[in-house]
Amino acid sequence: MNHQQGNVSEAVRALQAQFGARVSVLPDICAAHGRDLSLHPGMPPDAVAFPESTEEVAQIARLCSAHHTPMIPFGAGTSLEGHVAAVRGGVSVDLSGMNKVLEVGQQDLDCLVEAGVTRQQLNADLRDTGLFFPVDPGADASFGGMCATGASGTNAVRYGTMRENVLGLTVVLPSGEIIETGGRARKSSAGYDLTRLFIGSEGTLGFITKVRLRLTGIPESISAGLCAFDDMEGAVNAVILTIQMGLPVARIELLDEKAVRGCNAYSHLDMEEKPTLFLEFHGSPQSVKEQAERFGEISLEHGGGAFEWATREEERNRLWTARHNAFYAGLNMRPGSKALTTDVCVPISRLADCILETKADIGDSALIAPLVGHVGDGNFHLVFLIDPDSAEEEREANRLNDRLVLRALAMGGTCTGEHGVGLGKKALLAQEHGSALGLMRTLKHAIDPQDLMNPGKILP
Amino acid sequence: MNHQQGNVSEAVRALQAQFGARVSVLPDICAAHGRDLSLHPGMPPDAVAFPESTEEVAQIARLCSAHHTPMIPFGAGTSLEGHVAAVRGGVSVDLSGMNKVLEVGQQDLDCLVEAGVTRQQLNADLRDTGLFFPVDPGADASFGGMCATGASGTNAVRYGTMRENVLGLTVVLPSGEIIETGGRARKSSAGYDLTRLFIGSEGTLGFITKVRLRLTGIPESISAGLCAFDDMEGAVNAVILTIQMGLPVARIELLDEKAVRGCNAYSHLDMEEKPTLFLEFHGSPQSVKEQAERFGEISLEHGGGAFEWATREEERNRLWTARHNAFYAGLNMRPGSKALTTDVCVPISRLADCILETKADIGDSALIAPLVGHVGDGNFHLVFLIDPDSAEEEREANRLNDRLVLRALAMGGTCTGEHGVGLGKKALLAQEHGSALGLMRTLKHAIDPQDLMNPGKILP
Repeated sequence: MNHQQGNVSEAVRALQAQFGARVSVLPDICAAHGRDLSLHPGMPPDAVAFPESTEEVAQIARLCSAHHTPMIPFGAGTSLEGHVAAVRGGVSVDLSGMNKVLEVGQQDLDCLVEAGVTRQQLNADLRDTGLFFPVDPGADASFGGMCATGASGTNAVRYGTMRENVLGLTVVLPSGEIIETGGRARKSSAGYDLTRLFIGSEGTLGFITKVRLRLTGIPESISAGLCAFDDMEGAVNAVILTIQMGLPVARIELLDEKAVRGCNAYSHLDMEEKPTLFLEFHGSPQSVKEQAERFGEISLEHGGGAFEWATREEERNRLWTARHNAFYAGLNMRPGSKALTTDVCVPISRLADCILETKADIGDSALIAPLVGHVGDGNFHLVFLIDPDSAEEEREANRLNDRLVLRALAMGGTCTGEHGVGLGKKALLAQEHGSALGLMRTLKHAIDPQDLMNPGKILP
Repeated sequence: MNHQQGNVSEAVRALQAQFGARVSVLPDICAAHGRDLSLHPGMPPDAVAFPESTEEVAQIARLCSAHHTPMIPFGAGTSLEGHVAAVRGGVSVDLSGMNKVLEVGQQDLDCLVEAGVTRQQLNADLRDTGLFFPVDPGADASFGGMCATGASGTNAVRYGTMRENVLGLTVVLPSGEIIETGGRARKSSAGYDLTRLFIGSEGTLGFITKVRLRLTGIPESISAGLCAFDDMEGAVNAVILTIQMGLPVARIELLDEKAVRGCNAYSHLDMEEKPTLFLEFHGSPQSVKEQAERFGEISLEHGGGAFEWATREEERNRLWTARHNAFYAGLNMRPGSKALTTDVCVPISRLADCILETKADIGDSALIAPLVGHVGDGNFHLVFLIDPDSAEEEREANRLNDRLVLRALAMGGTCTGEHGVGLGKKALLAQEHGSALGLMRTLKHAIDPQDLMNPGKILP
């Protein structure tokens, strides 16, 4: 990459001249924009800009480019691999003020949102339409961020990830050029698929400023519930069979006994402290009933207990809130701890092996690390709870994390199913995609020849 | 682009030295590799190479690059926009000999195939596994070609297009470098999405030599049938409501009265000559029954007649064979004619407007052009039947085609839902993606700086 000497202070002065108080250099503001929810050390930018339109983002990009100054897109700050750290300083561009739902195409099941709109905001906005946006990574992330990391989450087993649910994007390239990708048609073979080039690009190729999303009709019938298993092997094998049989579960989430204990304490529940599946079925009343019955048969074969239903909406919400809070429930299990969170994804046939070997590995160490996962996709997380003052615990968590990823790769899996590479998995990306890294670098260099867009991320 | 002076004859001599009889310069062989199923004039390459492995494709790419000689990937030759025409001569690389199914992951519902494997070959191969590959463009295309055009077809409304059903690729870059993209995990956020960059790239960025596909369990129950409507508006509105209600139809295909007439004659059927929907439902016996009942209610509201069922497998096959042969049935309606086939895709809410305006436009002309479509996605085709000796008829078909595409674009649609851009829609791509063409060119130039990979396609 061509690291020309930047002049950040000139860029900041020029931005302040143009945007006034909407460019901040206050240390608190800068610090808050240089860190995410992970353990990665915060690296504050030199300034934070708060644009209100695509055109303003383009102006910022032009100014930063002219002054060889790094630019880091910032959404809700909920990423988990140090994505927003200003590794080489520069300007954080906070898109949270671009938070308008611009269009809802009720007849076409689509909508157009600005990048700062969050998942929960959109779904609240859609309340009266009978539609929802299904991708649900847990955190109330912004759509720009969800695109940038290729987010997915609990519903992906049924509805797909961001890759399958974004129809098009408005993107500001590092040069300040504004482009539109994709469109409103459900499918297209018109030219290169630029939409998916930016999904998962983690802010390294341009700013996503608007997103056109596919929406889904709220299913006529939804039922959810819990099923505890005698052992982990039984729980995972029940998942594997469910997927292999093509049962269209909407959600199938695993919590190990430690994660259950944490959720019980944090969310005031009284689940049995056993490996537990949280499930949700969507469809017509008849099809939901049929799915639940079939799952019941599978579960029985694998040591699953009685299904505990949550049919009312409040009960369901309580259940999924508890699941989404598993991260905080983990932290709460060891007061004062910080969490190192990781995620891998493996082919479904290897899921039991991968989880059992990983749990044995953690069992051999002194660390506590609850396991939760979107297991219908073969995707799971560990939350290592470590003493923030103990370099040794952090080293140990990193050692176990590396072993987990190498195990997943050896099984044909990926180093990250949904969190992205960021700072944390650059070396592991090289292990996974050695032959393709050269082409990734070629693309990065072609689009961002000065290496100004979120530098230092993804590519080792 | 940097059009260096090529030396094709030297490249061909070097290839013959290396591959012997597996490099042909016979005029018939060359001519057959320079044309597809469309009306686009054939442009024969200077030679055709028949590699048998990824490594051999890489050798060919290295030799052609060294001699600045164009390379054109060739699969089954079933494309429809002149994709294989050797616009600047060079070497056609016929991958049909690379036709092995390398792995079937029955537990993981995936497989790995060489690029020359065809859709029907794979599904025959999977016969005893209970699995199938759902994307079905009609033609018995090769998987390399289906990836390269971003193919879809009748099942896409339920199972998605190639974009959603390819897990990873082996690609030979123009330089001869071999890379692997994607992997076996169901989802990944590990780096740029190179897989989808090559899907839809129409041979302009590299050779696809292996494809890892998602497979689907054969549904427990399948039922299919026909429903004739009093008028086109009713038929299309029934489709729109079906999609808006989220009914998970597996196929919902429209034939206008002309296409029905053609199919009756060609496939010896006796359907009523009315706008007709061909439908298929997949699921459990109960869910299939429920879907059919719901569709029946929708259809009744929109002037649909009684549903004619084809429950036995032979009847179903007969029905879908007739649908797939609609192209030939069209040609058969006007003996001696050639077909100019086009495809557009619009947001579902505009489908009735687009089809009705298009049919009025054709009605005002002297041409015959049956209309068929994968209408669940908002995608439809016209097959203009023209006298091969009449330049005037070809001009008229092109005029109507341009009007159709501009109409679709004005409705928020795309110039091609599945056929790709090739030679035929380059100017229209500029109309659709004006702002993004610069970035498409940047990518092309970065990956293929000598402009040797299938030159003259996609980019205007």
